[in-house]
Amino acid sequence: MLPLFFLATIVVACQGSDLDPTHQIHLLRPQSGSHGAPVPDVSCLSWRLGVETRNIIGWSTVPEECEGYVGHYMLGHQYRQDSKVVAQEALVYARSLSIAGDGKDVWIFDVDETSLSNLPYYAKHGFGAEPYDSTSFNQWVLKGKAPALPESLKLYKKLLSLKVKVVFITGRAEDQRNVTTTNLKHVGYDTWEKLILKGSSYTGNTSLVYKSAERKKLEKKGYTIIGNIGDQWSDLLGANAGNRTFKLPDPMYYIS
Amino acid sequence: MLPLFFLATIVVACQGSDLDPTHQIHLLRPQSGSHGAPVPDVSCLSWRLGVETRNIIGWSTVPEECEGYVGHYMLGHQYRQDSKVVAQEALVYARSLSIAGDGKDVWIFDVDETSLSNLPYYAKHGFGAEPYDSTSFNQWVLKGKAPALPESLKLYKKLLSLKVKVVFITGRAEDQRNVTTTNLKHVGYDTWEKLILKGSSYTGNTSLVYKSAERKKLEKKGYTIIGNIGDQWSDLLGANAGNRTFKLPDPMYYIS
Repeated sequence: MLPLFFLATIVVACQGSDLDPTHQIHLLRPQSGSHGAPVPDVSCLSWRLGVETRNIIGWSTVPEECEGYVGHYMLGHQYRQDSKVVAQEALVYARSLSIAGDGKDVWIFDVDETSLSNLPYYAKHGFGAEPYDSTSFNQWVLKGKAPALPESLKLYKKLLSLKVKVVFITGRAEDQRNVTTTNLKHVGYDTWEKLILKGSSYTGNTSLVYKSAERKKLEKKGYTIIGNIGDQWSDLLGANAGNRTFKLPDPMYYIS
Repeated sequence: MLPLFFLATIVVACQGSDLDPTHQIHLLRPQSGSHGAPVPDVSCLSWRLGVETRNIIGWSTVPEECEGYVGHYMLGHQYRQDSKVVAQEALVYARSLSIAGDGKDVWIFDVDETSLSNLPYYAKHGFGAEPYDSTSFNQWVLKGKAPALPESLKLYKKLLSLKVKVVFITGRAEDQRNVTTTNLKHVGYDTWEKLILKGSSYTGNTSLVYKSAERKKLEKKGYTIIGNIGDQWSDLLGANAGNRTFKLPDPMYYIS
């Protein structure tokens, strides 16, 4: 909370701004590091917000100067807290619905950076500041040792208890089905209605096109997508996106 | 940047996490206030990210405990820097286009918290933590003294120089046309193709329905909406949203 004396300062300062001859809002206080604390790099904060709100799209690597910022974010409390709030909102929403329990209400989960976390890999590869290397990333995937994103795992379990079926749709290739199955089960995702991997027929298609097409097939089969959670906007946009979508944070990479 | 020794610690810690019996990613360092600096309230940060990413919707007031956080954010560098990054991305996009200059390429600007800023009002009303009071807010609007959001004004001027026409679409009521026109011109928005206000025929309709319908009319008349900028997702979703949309920050209120 702002101390009251500080709020009073703001109000006075804002009354003053009506008289500003430039007729533009202006900064009322510097964001300086008090008590010797480092000044946050506002432009990396803004870059991350831009990414999460889909203002910044089509980027290939984290800006070099933001590697440290993204690393701190991903390994600190904030990423986990941000993820927790998303999962909590998803659960509040799910609980507000009348789930028939007839097995037709499904929730889509993306896999990487949603159900599973590749943070142990990315921590060794510049948190997305290094160019993506499919060879070394696939070596990591094939280990099958990706931990769960705990907030997503909790949501998953709660949804199952609400009689919602879970469908995983992942950009991982069909030939990674076994290791993905093993990895998911190993960390606590015990059951699912479907695990959809990117088949060779989608080669050359964006994730958005592939995932939209697969969701459309699901709804044609009679499923209703009541919710959809992913870390990429390409998980959440396009046809049959779901009655409500939930965007987990991911400042490490962008998939179109 | 992370110091190298710290990065090394992260890598070691992450290798360790493969062995974590819970198979979940876990926090590697506490985000404690060093050097006596206050610990950021992670849940208000997460709340704001949740709002900006449209995970948190349909809220009526800023959570009481986040009033101070939102106040600091709005009056400090971060809000302005966040807005600047959005406007810069919009400009990069606009410059990438081939604008015919035939007057048919339009860019939609929302008014409140996009073209104009009501921050002087909200600073006196809890930065959105007080319940919305239409009487006092309309009194503020009728003064016609809202400053420009400087980053939007810069974008506006650059777009005009690129031969893009500007259309304002605002949730302000038709009877506020004169004061809105005066206010916009007074702060530097000198010209526009159209200023569309919410007519009485839309009473009871959401902003999303109203703005979608008006955008549809524009495109039926032969305009192409090449871009669209607003602070609410209801400015940017729905039919004829624009070839690309840009979401400015607004943690003070939510409009559906």
